[in-house]
Amino acid sequence: MVDTELRRDPITGGSVVIDRSPHPHPSDFVLEPVRIDAGLACAFCEGREGDAGAELLAWRDGGAANEPGWSVRVVANRRPMLRIEGHQERRSDGVFETRDGLGAHEAVIETPLHDQRLQDLPADRLWRVLWAWRTRLQDLKRDTRFASAVVYKNHGRAAGARMDHSHSQVAAYPILPEALDAKVRGAAAHFTWTGRCIFCDVTAQELQDGRRMVSDTLPIIAIAPFASRVPFETWLMPRVHSPRFEEASDATLGVMAVVLKDVLARVDWALERPAYNLVLHTAPFSGEADPAFHWHLEVIPRVTRWGGLEWGSGVPRNPVSPEEAARVLRDVKPVGPDL
Amino acid sequence: MVDTELRRDPITGGSVVIDRSPHPHPSDFVLEPVRIDAGLACAFCEGREGDAGAELLAWRDGGAANEPGWSVRVVANRRPMLRIEGHQERRSDGVFETRDGLGAHEAVIETPLHDQRLQDLPADRLWRVLWAWRTRLQDLKRDTRFASAVVYKNHGRAAGARMDHSHSQVAAYPILPEALDAKVRGAAAHFTWTGRCIFCDVTAQELQDGRRMVSDTLPIIAIAPFASRVPFETWLMPRVHSPRFEEASDATLGVMAVVLKDVLARVDWALERPAYNLVLHTAPFSGEADPAFHWHLEVIPRVTRWGGLEWGSGVPRNPVSPEEAARVLRDVKPVGPDL
Repeated sequence: MVDTELRRDPITGGSVVIDRSPHPHPSDFVLEPVRIDAGLACAFCEGREGDAGAELLAWRDGGAANEPGWSVRVVANRRPMLRIEGHQERRSDGVFETRDGLGAHEAVIETPLHDQRLQDLPADRLWRVLWAWRTRLQDLKRDTRFASAVVYKNHGRAAGARMDHSHSQVAAYPILPEALDAKVRGAAAHFTWTGRCIFCDVTAQELQDGRRMVSDTLPIIAIAPFASRVPFETWLMPRVHSPRFEEASDATLGVMAVVLKDVLARVDWALERPAYNLVLHTAPFSGEADPAFHWHLEVIPRVTRWGGLEWGSGVPRNPVSPEEAARVLRDVKPVGPDL
Repeated sequence: MVDTELRRDPITGGSVVIDRSPHPHPSDFVLEPVRIDAGLACAFCEGREGDAGAELLAWRDGGAANEPGWSVRVVANRRPMLRIEGHQERRSDGVFETRDGLGAHEAVIETPLHDQRLQDLPADRLWRVLWAWRTRLQDLKRDTRFASAVVYKNHGRAAGARMDHSHSQVAAYPILPEALDAKVRGAAAHFTWTGRCIFCDVTAQELQDGRRMVSDTLPIIAIAPFASRVPFETWLMPRVHSPRFEEASDATLGVMAVVLKDVLARVDWALERPAYNLVLHTAPFSGEADPAFHWHLEVIPRVTRWGGLEWGSGVPRNPVSPEEAARVLRDVKPVGPDL
């Protein structure tokens, strides 16, 4: 017997269908462990710095710029979605409006080793990846042509990755892109009505309730969102109100590295090393949303395939309730040298 | 040299990045022709009517209900997303809101033959599929608990299909699901300002411009939308203002069958028999949106994989401009017994 309900996302107001049936159907999932192909001609490998392009930032224990000796390295995306050379020009043609492809699009190479996954990095090395995100956001924010930035990661082909070598990406926009804008608008509406941050309200309620908590012992908590769009979706966010990731302290990044590594290990165990996306949402650059917004990192396992239902309705069907996902992730006891 | 621009969807206001570079990169596409596996235990095949369930509707040239002799057959989805037995109950728990999983979820079996694709049906048989959509929408609309319905189709596993046997689905909702709601709200805003239907305005401008027209000779036209989200996205819609697909005449469905068959043949040729989704949007049941809304069918080839960029920004990157897609689709000369 199928047992579903419609849930409203408390931030955006969007809906999802949550299937609370006790046993998901095998056809609900596409479990394909991510494989990493041999990197014979990988531009992101150490020693091929020239192929990846000039570095915008690197964590170096040695070597000169654009030479080996780095542990994290940031370069311009070679096929950027938006270009830093763009203009703020807009054009209208009847009902159609166009803007120049202005923006920034960078790749954060997370390790010099081809087959080392983000979640396999020791916590102090994962910290350097977060440090690179923070540093690049701080820098891009100084460019007044940009309104916002989003950091994201594609792990595995099923998650949209085109290169196997572990990397994340930073995209800066001249607008608030729709997914961020929906959260900013929802958070502003909640703030106008209550005077409080919706993320803080959600966090307080989840800590009290407990059913959707994945990890609640540190200053960064992990939650399976009430209106999770995919199985085992997990959000990491600071326990106290913090609009901007780029203003997080070194210590906060340290906690973040530990929690992210732990959550990814649990997801790996529960879903057999799945493809996943990471999405980091931080407040828009203008600062106007700061009282209402709260940075957070979405972990989005890609084990379901969206079809016409999701395209046509915008209301995803999630075959695993977040209560069940959180229970599984809490119960997992991943073991490894660093955990 | 990458050459991109941001385009605004004139209906929803959402943004896309359109890549106008002359030659898309091979990694921009995942071209996997859809394979149909042998249907040894397929519940949708003729002769196995009992496995698919009691029919809600069928086009029959013979045979009794729930027996062979049909060409199109509609049954309840065996694992429905929403249930017709549901209630309109809502529950609040602090910041969280839930509704009962009320709705309808039906499967339209488009052919008794396991390996016959929708686009391979003769136009008069494809007409019967559209007739089934229309009839089911008319029936579901009478249930006052429902606010709207969406018809969709998943062709191929990459498009979310779980069964190879050709079928589409009808989903009725107690709400306006987000993707439909975004169009209804955008259309209402345009109507309030101009007194005109945005779809009519877009159609008029596209017919005049011509660059994004795929097919413009019949009362149903086909357009590559200005803010296409994926390569070769194509919309079919009536040339004159028509809010509701379920009120389309037999003759209109006849033209629709011819145009849909033609467009799918062109997409098959251009993208090597790709997976695709179809989405039919018709006005909400209340009738309030009728002056501003215009039914249309989206053809959505699934040859790109969305990643963290799309999840995190909601702004898809489309590696093929709609002008280029429309040019290719116009130039294709599919040949076949029925064209």
